[in-house]
Formats: sequence, C-alpha cells, structure tokens
Amino acid sequence: MSTLKGNLIFGQSGGPTAVINASAAGVFTEALKRNDVIEKVYGAAHGIVGILNEQLYDIGQEDPAEIQLLKTTPSSELGSCRYKLTDPDIDDADYIKILEVFKKYNIRYFFYNGGNDSMDTCLKISKYLEKQNYECRILGVPKTIDNDLYGTDHCPGYASAARYIATATMEVHKDANVYDNTMICVLEVMGRHAGWLTAATALAATHGCGPDLIYLPEVPFDMDTMLQDTYKVFKEKKKVMIAVSEGVKTKEGKFLPELVTEDIARNSSGHAQLGGAASVLSNYLKYMIGGKVRGIEFSLLQRCASHWGSKIDVDEAYLAGVTAVQKAIEGYSGYMVAYERISNQPYRCEMKLVELKKAANVEKVIPREWINEEGNFVTQEFVDYAAPLIAIPSTPPLIDGLPRFAKLKKVLATP
Amino acid sequence: MSTLKGNLIFGQSGGPTAVINASAAGVFTEALKRNDVIEKVYGAAHGIVGILNEQLYDIGQEDPAEIQLLKTTPSSELGSCRYKLTDPDIDDADYIKILEVFKKYNIRYFFYNGGNDSMDTCLKISKYLEKQNYECRILGVPKTIDNDLYGTDHCPGYASAARYIATATMEVHKDANVYDNTMICVLEVMGRHAGWLTAATALAATHGCGPDLIYLPEVPFDMDTMLQDTYKVFKEKKKVMIAVSEGVKTKEGKFLPELVTEDIARNSSGHAQLGGAASVLSNYLKYMIGGKVRGIEFSLLQRCASHWGSKIDVDEAYLAGVTAVQKAIEGYSGYMVAYERISNQPYRCEMKLVELKKAANVEKVIPREWINEEGNFVTQEFVDYAAPLIAIPSTPPLIDGLPRFAKLKKVLATP
Repeated sequence: MSTLKGNLIFGQSGGPTAVINASAAGVFTEALKRNDVIEKVYGAAHGIVGILNEQLYDIGQEDPAEIQLLKTTPSSELGSCRYKLTDPDIDDADYIKILEVFKKYNIRYFFYNGGNDSMDTCLKISKYLEKQNYECRILGVPKTIDNDLYGTDHCPGYASAARYIATATMEVHKDANVYDNTMICVLEVMGRHAGWLTAATALAATHGCGPDLIYLPEVPFDMDTMLQDTYKVFKEKKKVMIAVSEGVKTKEGKFLPELVTEDIARNSSGHAQLGGAASVLSNYLKYMIGGKVRGIEFSLLQRCASHWGSKIDVDEAYLAGVTAVQKAIEGYSGYMVAYERISNQPYRCEMKLVELKKAANVEKVIPREWINEEGNFVTQEFVDYAAPLIAIPSTPPLIDGLPRFAKLKKVLATP
Repeated sequence: MSTLKGNLIFGQSGGPTAVINASAAGVFTEALKRNDVIEKVYGAAHGIVGILNEQLYDIGQEDPAEIQLLKTTPSSELGSCRYKLTDPDIDDADYIKILEVFKKYNIRYFFYNGGNDSMDTCLKISKYLEKQNYECRILGVPKTIDNDLYGTDHCPGYASAARYIATATMEVHKDANVYDNTMICVLEVMGRHAGWLTAATALAATHGCGPDLIYLPEVPFDMDTMLQDTYKVFKEKKKVMIAVSEGVKTKEGKFLPELVTEDIARNSSGHAQLGGAASVLSNYLKYMIGGKVRGIEFSLLQRCASHWGSKIDVDEAYLAGVTAVQKAIEGYSGYMVAYERISNQPYRCEMKLVELKKAANVEKVIPREWINEEGNFVTQEFVDYAAPLIAIPSTPPLIDGLPRFAKLKKVLATP
C-alpha cells in the first residue's frame, strides 16, 4: 500500500467513559510521532459536529505531559455529541460539508471513537468519500461502558465501569447489612439493551458482598416473578440486594417506568412512582413486602469513575488508539479496531480489525447460556469472562488527594 | 488512679462510615495488648442492642490480621443500631439489664462509637452506673460523616466521605460538561442538620471541576433565590452544577420534599415530584428553566466508600480507638475522645478528651462566616479547614482488583 500523506482528525462521540480519553492519548501520541506521514493532528470539538462547524483543535500545540494525563481523565475531553448522520441518498448536505472541511484541512486520516452509532457514522463517511474519490483512511475506535459492540471480545470503557460498579456494590452491601432489621436494596445500573454492566455486580457476589438477584435486559422482565424471587430471599435472609439494568423490559417490550405511568393513569388514587428502574422497583417492593427499602441509581457516577479504573482497560484503550494510527498508515480503512482475547490465565488480549459494516448498528448482548435458567443471575461463564478485565487497578495522579486531570489548551486550528 | 481490672465491651452505633471499623481495630488491638488489665475484649452485636440481648462477640478469638483489615473495611462490622435509651428516671428497665450484663461479664470498660445520640447513650449509662456504685470506665469514640460533633476539630468518617464526594463531583463535572448543550446537574449530599459534607464539593471546585452553587442546611433555603442564582449561572455558562444538602430547609423549617408534597396537595393537576432534594430541585429547574437536567443522589455510596478513603481519617480513627483504651486504663471516664488540630501546614492533629456532657446532643454546624454572604457557596476558610483532611489517600488491600474486607469469626461469648 502506498504512503498517504496528510492530516488527521480524531473525534469522540456518544456517552463518556473513564477511558475514552485514553484512546485519544493513544491516537495523538502515535500520530504526532509519525510526522513523516501525518503533518497535523486535529481533535474535533464535539465529534462530527465539530467537523461540520469547523471547530478543530490543533493537538500539536498541546503539552505531551497533558496528553499522557488524558489516560486517566474521564469523560470526553474534546467534547462529545449524539449527532446521527442521515443517509446520503436522502440528504447529503452534511457529507458535502465534511468533504469540504476534509479538503480544506487536507484530512487523510479520520478516526472516530464511539459506540454502534459512531461506527455507523464512520461507515457512512467512508462510503461517501470513496464514491467521491477522496482518499481518506477511516477507522473506528470502539468505546462504551455498555460493552455491546459486535466483533470485539469487550469494549474500552467497560472494564473500568465494571470495576467501579463491583466495588461500590460491595461497599453498599456492607452498609445495607448493618442494622438488625429487614432491608431490600435495589441497585440500578446503566445498560439500555445489554446487561453487561449490571452483570458486573456478580463480581461483588464472588467476593461475598453482592446481589442476590440480577435482572438484565436480555431476559423479559416479569414483575410477579421478581416479587416471588425477592420474597424467597427475604424470608430466608431478611436482607435482599437486587441489581437491575435500567433497560429491563417486559415481554411486551415495556420499560419499568412505562408500566408505572400506565398504572398511574389507570388508578390515579395510587401512589405516584416516578424515576428509573430502581425507583420503580423499590417503591413496588416497599408496598408489597414492606420494611426498609432503598433504591440506588449509580447514575453518571458509574460512567466516569476513573479514580477506580481498570489498568487493563486504560492500557488497551490507549493501544486501540495507537493501533488505529498504525493500521491506517499501513493502508487499512473501513475497519473498527477490536480486541481478541488470547488467553484468560494469564489474561492476554491482542488488537485486531473488524470490518465497520459488521460492527455498525449491531448490538452484542449477553449470551442466554451465561444467564441462569430462572433469568435472575449470571453463570460462572460470565464471571470467568469479566473477572480478568478488572484485576489490575488504575488510579489517576493526585494533587492534594484529588485527581489531576489533563488540561488541554484547545487551540483552534486554521487550515 | 488505681488500676481497674476487668473486661471490655466495644459497640458501634448510628449510620456507618468508611472508618468506624478503624476505630474498632484501634480499640481491639490496644485492648488485646493490655491483657495485664483487660482480660476479655468483647464486641457488642448491633451496639447497645447487643448488650441488652447479651449478644457479645469474643474478639480474642479473632485473627489479628483480620482485625487489621478492619481499618479499610467500611460500615459497622459488629452491626449497628439506632436505639435510644430512655431517661432512667422515666424507665430504667434497659439500665437494669445493662448493669446485669456488665456484672455477669465483669465489664469494667465500655466504649461506644457513634454520633451525638451515642454520646448521649454513653452519658446516661455512665451516670446510671455511677449512681449504682458500679465502677466502669466509659468513653465515647466519635464517628459521623456529618462532622457535626461538638468539641472536636473534625469527626472520624468525615474526611473519607469528603474525599469521595469531592472526587465523584469532579468526575461528574467532567461528564456533565461533555455535550454542546445546556446542562443543569444537581448533586444531593447527606447531612440533615449540618452541611460539612455538602461543602466538601467546594474542594472539587478548587480543582476546577466543582459546583457553581452550594446550598447548606445552615442557611434558610429559598426556592426563588435558588432559581435566580441558577439562572444567572445558566445564562453565562449554559452549564450549572449545584450541590445541595439533603437537609436544606426553608425559614419555616420545611424540607424540600415537604414543600412539594404540599404543592401536590394544593394542585393535583401538577406533575408529582417525589424523592429527595436532588429530585425535587431537578424537577423544579427542568420545569422553570428547561433543557437537560439531572439529579444525582450520592446515597449510601458516600457513606462507605472506603475504596477512596483518607489515610489521615483512617489513621486518626484508629488512634482514637487506641487512645480510648489508654485513657480509660489511666482512669478517665465520662469523656469523648476528640481531635485537636495543632497546625494546618504541615497538618498535625492530637488526641484529647472532651466531657461527654459537652458533646452529647449538641450539633456543630458550619460557622456562618465560612459561608458566603449570598448563602450559596463556602469561603476559603472552609477550604483551608477541609483540604488537609483529604490530602493522603487510603486504599484497601485488593484481591483480583476488588477490596479484601475483614472477615470476623464473630464467636458468641459466654460469661
């Protein structure tokens, strides 16, 4: 493959994670090193939106030490977006603008860091530019705490979130068991369609401080069955801990808050129950079983807890960025960087490439056989899969006991 | 003072913290060392309730390595309670039972670890036993994330919770700023009567990722003023982060959820708003200002986050336990162990004793002059006070990346 000289844009998209900036650090460090091929390295402000608005940061002006600090800085330092490109056959205005910006800044390398939607964005741009005979190498860099990208053993961002969730679950378990009374504790974990992160609470259970019941979007949710499951544990132990995905839904496809809204509409004299899955379930269990009940939503805390990250996650996310640059320079385009697990003990993982068209818009859920027959816990297979990913801690550098996050200058580039 | 030989009971009371078990480790380690004076060391199951029910663990049978692990094990490992003794002049049944158990087990040292109520319990038992001419040395060991005990510079448990809150606030701040849209984020922190822990979010602000507004129970809360404060920041920055104590109340003494309940009663056509302060404020701001609004309740997570503790807190809590044993053997009784800050840079703190009657039932709130004139943030004095307490991290030993908590055998004692 011939050498393609030109400039590079890296963009971040979708929900933040603890390590999306680690991938940025990988891309930036490797790309700045390869100035024989890549002259300018740009970061798009708020992903594709920054390209459409021509808001590009000149990464060459950043302090290399700050770029390294990105490895332990959570969220998306360049800014993120949830912008979805339309099909170019329906409306090609965005694509025309992207091509214009790419030409203006001589962009020959474009990397997009995100989940399913972002891989779809990569694919659409890739196809459009090819059609326009504009040579540009485009690679997707995966990220999502949901861990639901197809074609990769796991996703950057998942392991750090999983380690935080498992630890916080252990701590809450200790707290919830402190009084000599009954206690039902419902933990709500992110994951709209896949239960990977909620299932990580099982790692707390293997350490003796975890949930009794785990409900995942992979299994149709039934309120009566959940109540029976809970009451069985309650009768035996007086304490019940339940982990529930925000995305659990009934076999009719209704999310928990929807069920309640309908119930309120039917019976306006009932207690109003708002909020997410934890709120709905804890109110329901309070009403049906009684005693002390607490619903806890991990909310944004789980997405950005880089203070308690996974070093494997950070290192792999960085390497995914490095690999993207290397593979693009080698000539690859239209792929997503992915992970292949080589062995579990000792844990070893290698980078590979997966065709974007295979990764885009497909969701990988937990295999049904990794969930127990009753649909209320995960099996040892899941634990064996997830445990090695969280085994080594990552901590940010500290100043006065608090994290020192990267501070970028964010100098706007001119063509 | 003459040497008093006999046995010892240690009990834990009130809400758990990250370091209440560190004080237990201090008491146990020192007491087991002093077997010239103290023959048997007992831990009461669920505090005073365990004494009333004669459920005492024989700590001498525990593995010393596990006792050391208590230093980084959150919650109350012996179990806690919220039992409040009645005045013995009204009903002395509990006191008679306590004296009976103390005699039966030859208890001559009693240490109670808790907040205001627990110091009151200590005081009542102390007075009763004195009246009955039963010699027993009684000391209170402070603990509370609320930091509201009188007579001590700060309370064990506060610094660890403050470090966690400040860090999580920084991370959420990173997350909440990621999209190019408006965002109002409301963080709810524990503290029913004192705002010390909520004020700790100001430490995140000194690191550039903290709240714009802080509302504390020390200042009467006004919904209109809060709305004006918020809108001012919103107009300027598009992003607002608000930290609010669960205990803020209006000048009429009404908590936020109460206000809303009244509002619902008045106007049943309005949207129902349930939950705590974050939920109430975020719903209100969503309605009044609009755009993306998120309420986050730190809930139990803040109380037991020993994974991200303060080493100063752990060490001091341990030392408080050691000091209690030493001072009691020396002959002191009727006191609470307290902290005196000797210097701020370098941070130095010494143990002292405060009379129980001074500490019991008194709440120490943030001085008004440490809160700005508008009542919506804290001053540099508060930051100077709190920052040294969180400067050194404490982390539990890990197994496979997750905390290894202490595992006590909890062998029930016989007299």
